[in-house]
Amino acid sequence: MKTATRSRENTRARLMDAAFEVFAEVGLDAASVEAICDRAGFTRGAFYSNFDSKDELFLDLAARVASARVESVQSRIGGLVAAGPEGFDEGEIASILEQVLDVGADDRLGVLLMSEIRIRALRDPDVAQAFLAQDAAMQRSIAQIITDVATIKGIGLRMDAGQAALLMLTVWESSAVRALIQGVADESQGGEAALRAAASVHLNEVARLILC
Amino acid sequence: MKTATRSRENTRARLMDAAFEVFAEVGLDAASVEAICDRAGFTRGAFYSNFDSKDELFLDLAARVASARVESVQSRIGGLVAAGPEGFDEGEIASILEQVLDVGADDRLGVLLMSEIRIRALRDPDVAQAFLAQDAAMQRSIAQIITDVATIKGIGLRMDAGQAALLMLTVWESSAVRALIQGVADESQGGEAALRAAASVHLNEVARLILC
Repeated sequence: MKTATRSRENTRARLMDAAFEVFAEVGLDAASVEAICDRAGFTRGAFYSNFDSKDELFLDLAARVASARVESVQSRIGGLVAAGPEGFDEGEIASILEQVLDVGADDRLGVLLMSEIRIRALRDPDVAQAFLAQDAAMQRSIAQIITDVATIKGIGLRMDAGQAALLMLTVWESSAVRALIQGVADESQGGEAALRAAASVHLNEVARLILC
Repeated sequence: MKTATRSRENTRARLMDAAFEVFAEVGLDAASVEAICDRAGFTRGAFYSNFDSKDELFLDLAARVASARVESVQSRIGGLVAAGPEGFDEGEIASILEQVLDVGADDRLGVLLMSEIRIRALRDPDVAQAFLAQDAAMQRSIAQIITDVATIKGIGLRMDAGQAALLMLTVWESSAVRALIQGVADESQGGEAALRAAASVHLNEVARLILC
């Protein structure tokens, strides 16, 4: 890669990292281009030579966060499947899904940004399509884990693997959001351990329902 | 009530109705006091003689929406329970919960506002406490339905009624949000029938898992 190109990529990446934090902290609407530039240590000129608008940056960031989340889930699955039955020493499908869904779920900023993406998707067709593509990819990945684990361990499923995947994903997301909100209500920002605990308890109960 | 008081209440109510629409349409941060006043047909003076700030109005509105939702659920439950077994002609717990959760769930603005409240609750302790109080009240109401229906119909539950209630509530919320996002992606704003259909299918599958 040419140095100029690399430095441009580097500037974009630093602006997106800064924007990730600012969007998650104050929300997309309240996040100013100035605040993003200050966080990144760049001028507004550098911002506008890389992005047409804050919304363009948000869409790029949403796509980057979404694909990173899916890739991370898929690589974890790859590892678990390659390891074969021994890879499932922990046994329970829920504990495996916990490792997999753990991606970002104990990360307050990650949950905040996913919530921003979701609420934006309720209003903007481009964000809606990005959200649905990532959601479908996550569901396929999780359905694959559930199928692989059920096959390797000879466990039966009480519902279609795709529906079970959507259910597990839904339960995890809502447990993570509710646990974070509890942390905010208690004004204990360090609620991430509690978050993981609450989410995994609920995930285990649901896994117990799905398996037979 | 004194006329002056009634007219003041009337002004507050009209401002809150207007704010409900504006917040749901553009989000809390993008909603200006001007836009709310224009929608309500009042001056900014009338606004500030009723509310200290947009945030104060939002908190009042969130509390009003939340308690209306809970009251509506509880009155529906009251009716179903009073009717006794015959009240459950539809049979399935899911179809009963559908009637109950229907509150606002086929209402795009309602789902948008609940999403605004949730994301706000991830950042603001006051909103977080309001969200958790309403969430707990909804869970208790739904747990009561599940218990009443299970008792009257002699159905067993495969998980604690409180956990089952949280699961049903979670599934309904996420199905409603995903169905609305699908409608936005398709740029078919009239996705409310599809919304109810998608949410109820998923709710039925989960009810089937919970019952034994």
